[in-house]
Amino acid sequence: MSSSLVPEAFSRRISEVRTAMRSREVDGLLVTHRPNIRYLTGFAGSSGCVLVSSRDIVLVTDGRYIERARIEQPWLQVELAADALADVVSRRVSSVGMRRLGFESEHMSYARAQALRTELAETHPQSELASADGIVEALRMVKDEYELGALARATALVDAALSYAVGSIVAGMTELEAAWSIERWLRENGSGSLPFPVIVASGPNSALPHAEPGERALRTGEPIVIDVGATFDGYCSDLTRTVFLGEMSPEHQDLYRTVLSAQSSVLQWLRSGVLAADADNVARTVISSTKYSGMFVHGLGHGVGLEVHEGPVLNSRSEDTLLNSMVFTVEPGIYMASFGGVRIEDTVVLRNNSAVALTQFDKNNPVIH
Amino acid sequence: MSSSLVPEAFSRRISEVRTAMRSREVDGLLVTHRPNIRYLTGFAGSSGCVLVSSRDIVLVTDGRYIERARIEQPWLQVELAADALADVVSRRVSSVGMRRLGFESEHMSYARAQALRTELAETHPQSELASADGIVEALRMVKDEYELGALARATALVDAALSYAVGSIVAGMTELEAAWSIERWLRENGSGSLPFPVIVASGPNSALPHAEPGERALRTGEPIVIDVGATFDGYCSDLTRTVFLGEMSPEHQDLYRTVLSAQSSVLQWLRSGVLAADADNVARTVISSTKYSGMFVHGLGHGVGLEVHEGPVLNSRSEDTLLNSMVFTVEPGIYMASFGGVRIEDTVVLRNNSAVALTQFDKNNPVIH
Repeated sequence: MSSSLVPEAFSRRISEVRTAMRSREVDGLLVTHRPNIRYLTGFAGSSGCVLVSSRDIVLVTDGRYIERARIEQPWLQVELAADALADVVSRRVSSVGMRRLGFESEHMSYARAQALRTELAETHPQSELASADGIVEALRMVKDEYELGALARATALVDAALSYAVGSIVAGMTELEAAWSIERWLRENGSGSLPFPVIVASGPNSALPHAEPGERALRTGEPIVIDVGATFDGYCSDLTRTVFLGEMSPEHQDLYRTVLSAQSSVLQWLRSGVLAADADNVARTVISSTKYSGMFVHGLGHGVGLEVHEGPVLNSRSEDTLLNSMVFTVEPGIYMASFGGVRIEDTVVLRNNSAVALTQFDKNNPVIH
Repeated sequence: MSSSLVPEAFSRRISEVRTAMRSREVDGLLVTHRPNIRYLTGFAGSSGCVLVSSRDIVLVTDGRYIERARIEQPWLQVELAADALADVVSRRVSSVGMRRLGFESEHMSYARAQALRTELAETHPQSELASADGIVEALRMVKDEYELGALARATALVDAALSYAVGSIVAGMTELEAAWSIERWLRENGSGSLPFPVIVASGPNSALPHAEPGERALRTGEPIVIDVGATFDGYCSDLTRTVFLGEMSPEHQDLYRTVLSAQSSVLQWLRSGVLAADADNVARTVISSTKYSGMFVHGLGHGVGLEVHEGPVLNSRSEDTLLNSMVFTVEPGIYMASFGGVRIEDTVVLRNNSAVALTQFDKNNPVIH
């Protein structure tokens, strides 16, 4: 729940939110999405919301968190949500004199939004509740130095976890045993709770992009997809390697080289200012020119930060532009039903106009012993 | 994701949903809350929704899950959500001829509900979207034999985890170390992912009802609150014991006996047909008659099932009636700022008109060595 970020960093973020609020023509913003609350205030409790107006910012939370928030966010006005949220918001609308209150309509239930709207209509008929989505998410896409530091720690954790994994998995171990041993290693070596369950998918299961580990035993010579995330101070990381126990057939080598070549092509091509959809296309073009055409069945990647899936979106329909200090995954994969699949994923940052991989685990020697 | 429940059990549940739909005057119900989807179909994927009409039931999910759902829920019509949810729903409204489609407004974002409403207004102006909350939740409160079996396994796991904990924690170990050792034991002994992070709160931290484990070292003679949940086949359990390393002062003994007496009073008093608010009052009255009056700062308990917090609600404002085959916690606590706190919690089932504790870990000998 604590944060080593200085209040000035939060002030800067809040100031950017206010700029966005003006362009959206709202004079208040009710922030209810937890990662957005954490980004703006450092508050990481499970219950609360933040109300930003042009002149102040208030964190509303319950009795479990209020004392802690007052200690850890002393620069923040903290109010107890003793009443329903609608009442608290209504009082703030009064005291600040808001005309048009924005809310995160993708992150508030219909029931809650309606309760709020009804309350405002009764108490402040001149005020209006308006959807104002994505304001904080847009800011979060570009990371500051503090965030890049936390992301470096989170990516170092998954690199180390992969080293542990390739040093400890053996034929006969089940996918579930391997996945748990990796989770356990992460939790005992500095990671917070994992952003997603560890994936270990072997043999035919490797052909499923979102396989869940099962009782299948790992076998020599089959692809084993290991997809791992960690958290450090709330920031996530995401890394996938595909390894082969003992040996690798020529067919698997060809498959592996194709995925690696698609990923390398993207990493070398990336520049600040390119379209995310074009990055996706670079990888897709490499794969389409091979016999694996059509087998790259998901998007190229996603932003990584306080959430393990956030903006920018890297797929063929994305309208995002990739900029310096954005952190995202580059993860092409080829999936051949029953034969198996290969995915290679790194978490990278755009810096000095080129892509720098934060995850650095070796990908040139997929055969492990 | 699999379920050992026979299709007939799901048919019965769906038939009960249809009865509730008629009384709510909706001829379709869009179920989007994950535990509700799992309850009605056995489908436990992370993405999907269920559309119940008077004549059929359709699971809509994405490419990651569709093959699996077709294998594991063969009795269910499964449709690929290749398009936006709004399009899929719109087609169903056409084919079934729905007039009034209910949705779970507490479990759907405002943005998604508005998109759905807009789509329906364009394509089926004669159809209406209506909030229809709590239909499946109401059914889920009363457990069937299959569910009681899963809950018995989940509660046996937390009992065993507590045995492990009292046998392994020692003075000097930090709260975080103790909490992780319990989580690790559970995960290595049959529990699915934990329903909430293990709480180990010692000394002054025991006075916080929702403490998070920290770097504080456990000390002799202080209250140590251990609050643990497990899952088995999706079903949760919840158990709290307060223990004392080595010794217990007369003041702590008095505090402990008061909480235990409040809990015992409730357990002996419980009958099918009583009001949950009255159960809360039984415990509160015991505590109010002592010097600890006012220090029982939360509700008495909550239902436990596919969610660790579900209906019935046991607090002073509850309107729920407790019935046979309901499973819920009974967890009075007394919290004295800086001095410490004691909470004793069991997961119980109402059966044959009396309360039977599913969690059975000893609570008469809180001093451990």
